[in-house]
Amino acid sequence: MKFTKMQGTGNDFIVIEDFDLKLLNEQDKFAQKLCDRRFGIGADGILFVRKSEVADIKMEIINADGSYAAMCGNGIRCFAKYVLDEKLVSDNNIKIETGDGIKIADVNLDKNGAANVTIDMGNYSLNPKDIPAESEDTIINKKIVVGNKEYEIISMLMGVPHTVIISKLDEVDINEGKAIEKYNLFPKGTNVNFCEVIDKNNIKVKTWERGAGPTLACGTGSCAAVIASNLIGLTEKDVKVQVPGGEMQIKISDNGIFMTGPAVTVFKGQI
Amino acid sequence: MKFTKMQGTGNDFIVIEDFDLKLLNEQDKFAQKLCDRRFGIGADGILFVRKSEVADIKMEIINADGSYAAMCGNGIRCFAKYVLDEKLVSDNNIKIETGDGIKIADVNLDKNGAANVTIDMGNYSLNPKDIPAESEDTIINKKIVVGNKEYEIISMLMGVPHTVIISKLDEVDINEGKAIEKYNLFPKGTNVNFCEVIDKNNIKVKTWERGAGPTLACGTGSCAAVIASNLIGLTEKDVKVQVPGGEMQIKISDNGIFMTGPAVTVFKGQI
Repeated sequence: MKFTKMQGTGNDFIVIEDFDLKLLNEQDKFAQKLCDRRFGIGADGILFVRKSEVADIKMEIINADGSYAAMCGNGIRCFAKYVLDEKLVSDNNIKIETGDGIKIADVNLDKNGAANVTIDMGNYSLNPKDIPAESEDTIINKKIVVGNKEYEIISMLMGVPHTVIISKLDEVDINEGKAIEKYNLFPKGTNVNFCEVIDKNNIKVKTWERGAGPTLACGTGSCAAVIASNLIGLTEKDVKVQVPGGEMQIKISDNGIFMTGPAVTVFKGQI
Repeated sequence: MKFTKMQGTGNDFIVIEDFDLKLLNEQDKFAQKLCDRRFGIGADGILFVRKSEVADIKMEIINADGSYAAMCGNGIRCFAKYVLDEKLVSDNNIKIETGDGIKIADVNLDKNGAANVTIDMGNYSLNPKDIPAESEDTIINKKIVVGNKEYEIISMLMGVPHTVIISKLDEVDINEGKAIEKYNLFPKGTNVNFCEVIDKNNIKVKTWERGAGPTLACGTGSCAAVIASNLIGLTEKDVKVQVPGGEMQIKISDNGIFMTGPAVTVFKGQI
């Protein structure tokens, strides 16, 4: 079986074409096996390329632990580059069906084949019911105490529940996110993004992902950090985000949140 | 560039043919890049296949951190299967030049192409000068105290310095190896093998590798554990060793120590 290994800001994926759905029934065990970094190919998840009835193409993500993921910002950038490279779509503006609805990807290839992909990430909600959070008011600069430390938080739904904490990154331990994730304000938990504002157009973000821990890059978390820092006047609406795995550009517009970042083909293989 | 990804008891390698030595000058940086598990192919090291003037073929190992390794028991099993599969040698009894001299590999392929490879690991030395250890006497059942805990140790040179501690594996924390590695008896440090004897022909081993920490399997460490447990009468001379990454069979004979274990081709790729 042929596969392609890709990464976007350090979040890495095995891309496999499965138009005839041969792998559908066993895809959870298949992902566990192939994503193992020593006994398999090694990746954070598999991106299955499948036919769509409603868009140009369909992406289905199975995580390394076999669980289903509705959507992944870093994954969809890789997916978009893949389907364009392989000529599975005719245009660099691609409608991709995901578990979180249809997403629009815009692929810009340079002459070496490297890609910067812009994804319309949809919109966010500050409504506590949407996040969900047990709060009457929107959560903007709300003070909470977790593990004897006070944090000032901004929380929203941006694809998944996100909490942003403006802080100097060298003064926080990313593992503080573990307790904040499960803070009783959030019945379904929350991702936690520590965000350092460098200037109006540059921030640094480290994300603790709900149920996963620290990651090299979180697409929706980077969006949430830009939205939060813009909301309280610390940044403009078009911001470069440095994450441990690389850089993304996040733009807030009237039409939604747009994330631009790299998608890299690392190698092709046969297993 | 073509490569093959292989693993032996969970110790994984990228095998690359480099007969014209094109990669020699940059091989340390090359290994660091390719062995990265997210931005590269991902592996514990690269096995370069090169010409030998003195044996059938030459194996050169560069670790994931760019450092040179003279020899690796799990690596050479994979290497032997590779050169036989690729018809780079004519016979399944292969003389392989390594940084630790010429090693003899015997490859047994089953009908599915899976391989069990036997390696003549050479001999061991209990001489403290060889290990090296600052001791007048051989180190057999010597009591030492490290971090308020007493251990009874057996130490030897088996390729590299090895210390064996007979213990119930669920009663030790593999991380205790960290302090034992640097115990002042061993000027160059020591690998630490916790070894549980199941019966005369079966043991379980967990190894703390010097400078690397816990690993899924250590070939020389498994040999050392069998030698040590045989020395004090707990096992015979032909012993199955269970390690976290799989199983090996170790045989002590008058001609040396023979290690038999699996070598698996995981996938082939192009980068």
